[in-house]
Amino acid sequence: MLKGIAASNGFAIGKAFLMTKKGIHIDEEKAESMDDELNRLRDTVSKTLVELDNIYNKTKIDIGDKEAMIFESHKMMLEDPEYIAHIKKNIQEKQHQVPYAIQKATDFYVDIFEKMDNPYMRERAVDIKDVADRMIRISLGESTEICHLTDQVILIARDLTPSDTAELDKSKVKAFVTQVGSTTSHSAIMAHSMGIPAVVGCQLVDKISDGDLLIVDGFTGNIIINPEKKVIQAYERQLETYQEEVKALKKYKPLRFNYTSGRHVSVAGNIGSIDDLELLLEQGTEGIGLFRTEFLFMGRTEMPSEEEQFEIYKHVAETMKDKPVIIRTLDIGGDKIIPYMNMPDEENPFMGLRALRLCFKEIEVFKTQLRAILRAGYYGNIHIMFPMIGAMDELLKAKTILETCKHTLLEQGIPLSNHLPVGMMIEIPAAAICARDFAKEVDFFSIGTNDLIQYTLAVDRMNVDVSGLYNPYHPGVLHLIQSTIQAAHEAGIWCGMCGEMASDIEATSLLAKMELDEFSVTGNAILKIKEQLSYQTNITVE
Amino acid sequence: MLKGIAASNGFAIGKAFLMTKKGIHIDEEKAESMDDELNRLRDTVSKTLVELDNIYNKTKIDIGDKEAMIFESHKMMLEDPEYIAHIKKNIQEKQHQVPYAIQKATDFYVDIFEKMDNPYMRERAVDIKDVADRMIRISLGESTEICHLTDQVILIARDLTPSDTAELDKSKVKAFVTQVGSTTSHSAIMAHSMGIPAVVGCQLVDKISDGDLLIVDGFTGNIIINPEKKVIQAYERQLETYQEEVKALKKYKPLRFNYTSGRHVSVAGNIGSIDDLELLLEQGTEGIGLFRTEFLFMGRTEMPSEEEQFEIYKHVAETMKDKPVIIRTLDIGGDKIIPYMNMPDEENPFMGLRALRLCFKEIEVFKTQLRAILRAGYYGNIHIMFPMIGAMDELLKAKTILETCKHTLLEQGIPLSNHLPVGMMIEIPAAAICARDFAKEVDFFSIGTNDLIQYTLAVDRMNVDVSGLYNPYHPGVLHLIQSTIQAAHEAGIWCGMCGEMASDIEATSLLAKMELDEFSVTGNAILKIKEQLSYQTNITVE
Repeated sequence: MLKGIAASNGFAIGKAFLMTKKGIHIDEEKAESMDDELNRLRDTVSKTLVELDNIYNKTKIDIGDKEAMIFESHKMMLEDPEYIAHIKKNIQEKQHQVPYAIQKATDFYVDIFEKMDNPYMRERAVDIKDVADRMIRISLGESTEICHLTDQVILIARDLTPSDTAELDKSKVKAFVTQVGSTTSHSAIMAHSMGIPAVVGCQLVDKISDGDLLIVDGFTGNIIINPEKKVIQAYERQLETYQEEVKALKKYKPLRFNYTSGRHVSVAGNIGSIDDLELLLEQGTEGIGLFRTEFLFMGRTEMPSEEEQFEIYKHVAETMKDKPVIIRTLDIGGDKIIPYMNMPDEENPFMGLRALRLCFKEIEVFKTQLRAILRAGYYGNIHIMFPMIGAMDELLKAKTILETCKHTLLEQGIPLSNHLPVGMMIEIPAAAICARDFAKEVDFFSIGTNDLIQYTLAVDRMNVDVSGLYNPYHPGVLHLIQSTIQAAHEAGIWCGMCGEMASDIEATSLLAKMELDEFSVTGNAILKIKEQLSYQTNITVE
Repeated sequence: MLKGIAASNGFAIGKAFLMTKKGIHIDEEKAESMDDELNRLRDTVSKTLVELDNIYNKTKIDIGDKEAMIFESHKMMLEDPEYIAHIKKNIQEKQHQVPYAIQKATDFYVDIFEKMDNPYMRERAVDIKDVADRMIRISLGESTEICHLTDQVILIARDLTPSDTAELDKSKVKAFVTQVGSTTSHSAIMAHSMGIPAVVGCQLVDKISDGDLLIVDGFTGNIIINPEKKVIQAYERQLETYQEEVKALKKYKPLRFNYTSGRHVSVAGNIGSIDDLELLLEQGTEGIGLFRTEFLFMGRTEMPSEEEQFEIYKHVAETMKDKPVIIRTLDIGGDKIIPYMNMPDEENPFMGLRALRLCFKEIEVFKTQLRAILRAGYYGNIHIMFPMIGAMDELLKAKTILETCKHTLLEQGIPLSNHLPVGMMIEIPAAAICARDFAKEVDFFSIGTNDLIQYTLAVDRMNVDVSGLYNPYHPGVLHLIQSTIQAAHEAGIWCGMCGEMASDIEATSLLAKMELDEFSVTGNAILKIKEQLSYQTNITVE
């Protein structure tokens, strides 16, 4: 039996798969043409940025904001003028080819970071190696290597980089075990978010051979190699109990709930792309409470066309049939950057040119999206939702632009939904405070707790120095949530919540007492929230 | 008569002083020791940073936040690795001495900026020249040149850099006229803030000779050279009327006001250093509503000692006699950086490790300041105020630390004020929303509107792309202000305001209706606010 650090809960029994990274052959031959190599470097950097954008988005949706930030920091490395200048210098002065130039520059920085007397900075060495590996692979025209697992396995590695972890095919990996790392290392955090059992910091990982039968206990950090039958049976029973608990949740899938006051409470899901639909449907979602359209715009080199957007929105609308699909208009800026949009560098991006504010500046981008949404509305039950509204004139302006788009489509004889409900996010404190006024002008609210909490408490939750102050249960925050719901009900409209707080089972009881009308949650939280709702005294099963 | 662009209101009649910049002699001789030159560069950069810090602070207090930001951007240039690397390269590869190396690197960038097809970027050329001039001067060991005006003059220049403008001795400059610039150029904005009449973009400025008698009309942009007596007399009458209006304000100096409900309303002032006291006393301030202590910490290379702080606080307390002096504990972070404190680089500094949050991390810095304040309290009517409180436990923690410091001083037998009133800033929305709870734990509130508005609206007002959304009159903001004042009164404590809104005469009537107890304003606004208060129907003169 080996012992490591329990990094992510769960049991797994399965065959070990030793992940040895394919040694990438790096050519040390001199470059033939310096210009060619410099072009190749430019090409490599831009392709790497696109790949990082994709993995950022994937991670953001699949796992979470914090985990995705890792790849933001990777992008920042690529934008570090010193690092890139170092690579260029290797090409220009030493006639290195791109992969070798990257390798040498990286070695230089890794060496510096690894020697530092600060665990945080040493951790940075892992990141820079990760970025460099990706660049080298891309410069050699090779694709990612981890996706070719054919059987379900327990993955064994010396280390898993954040990229490795994010790119894991969840359906093929039962658990993972690494030799290095701690409970706070990137990979451990990501495994936890992905719901894969994991043990890290297992020094004697070399004792495991490819194909060994393993029991990985993510609760205790124990790993048993080729266990006796009795032990397997004991663990199988434990695994069964655990799986039964997970399975028990399934019974909540068909349930629908009402408050004793008579209001219906629905449990819907958040999506960032078509790929996210399946998991939601499996769990019996009552609709899409938030379609984050910004991910259609990210990780590419040009704007998606009206047609392209229309097809995607239409597909979602048709898939969901008569269930509501709330499409939020483009919410970029803040921590979400679109390279081809030439967005300004900002001192405080969270309080800058974001979302609707940016859309008003890029009016054609906005109109294109509105046209695509209006057209898709013809094929299902689409709702439209505007983000980051703080002032009444912003809402009125957005509604006017929407009307103009409707009018043009009508004139052009293009089919559209003429009666699509219009809602707004409540995520700026001023909007929550003035919810009574806003409620007269929209068909529904959706509370974006992540931002609402950040602004109400003046805390950037991505900032480790202050994230401890980020508190969804601050009485000031709860007051704003409650008064927003109340204002909606008084005006005869409904109020949902699509921020992370909606997925937090600790908050369900509080929110149910406020008679929140819709919980829009991440894919794997639907059943858990339904279970919580079933326990509430002011809720009955339909 | 010459015609220019009216850039700052007011009339001036006086002698022209032609400002010709002293040509700085730059040695083209080769450097003797590369190491010496690199050290000299390092020394130059660090001295320049300190000088820019000082001018930033001076501008922030004398003129305003926005104007001070210019010098933040200057500091950023010094921190631009490309620019500094370019200078280094000139030293290392071309054996240039520092001043010449700076000049050559600067020429390179100025040339790029000036050729750009974008007025904003062209304007950056002015900034980089300004920074380079400062560095070159410092590297040559020369001091600033503008401070040696002996008579009151009208300053004539081809151009005034932001530094020139900030460093002007206001008491010696009646007006200024420049050949280049527009109403939106840095210098015009600063002249306006400083209350000096200015005409910019006056093409024919060469027609003015040193010593010419000039009339500068900052309302129309007219400049009259050696005018006839009749014209002078006409302008003197106009100038008189204008000055009388200014003088008329003086009658408000001795007035004290009460609300008809019986509450006293006081007009106090904000200071950043001892130097600001004089102007306030001249205007008859009723106290210091905000002593921004962070400026004692900025623009220097080490922490001010307890003794140093004590002497300053004591001086202010003694000068103000029995009038209240509210000392706010260190409020750095956000846009206020202290180089020697090794503060983290933050993605969103306004929502990061600021003020009290930082003080809790740097507990010795905090305690040193608290001890100095407690000791100074013995010599006057000092109040203490904590900034950036969002959660109740932050306030309780700050109060506990204060008690510990008191206890230690008592034990050490050091004289102190044992009953110094403790207040808090209301500048985070959550604090305003929960004002009722906080009111039970403090002796007074002071509303920091600048931050409160920023967070409530999620708008960084320094960000030109969104500053149009910064609106002190947003109903959500007004609601928080009103409910904070109400909560204070219900708890039997008083509520002041020290943000810019307190100095805004457009807001006086609204705030008086809410029965704000104290307007703490910038130096030159005291009389104007008193004038406004005298017009209110719910206010009587004491």
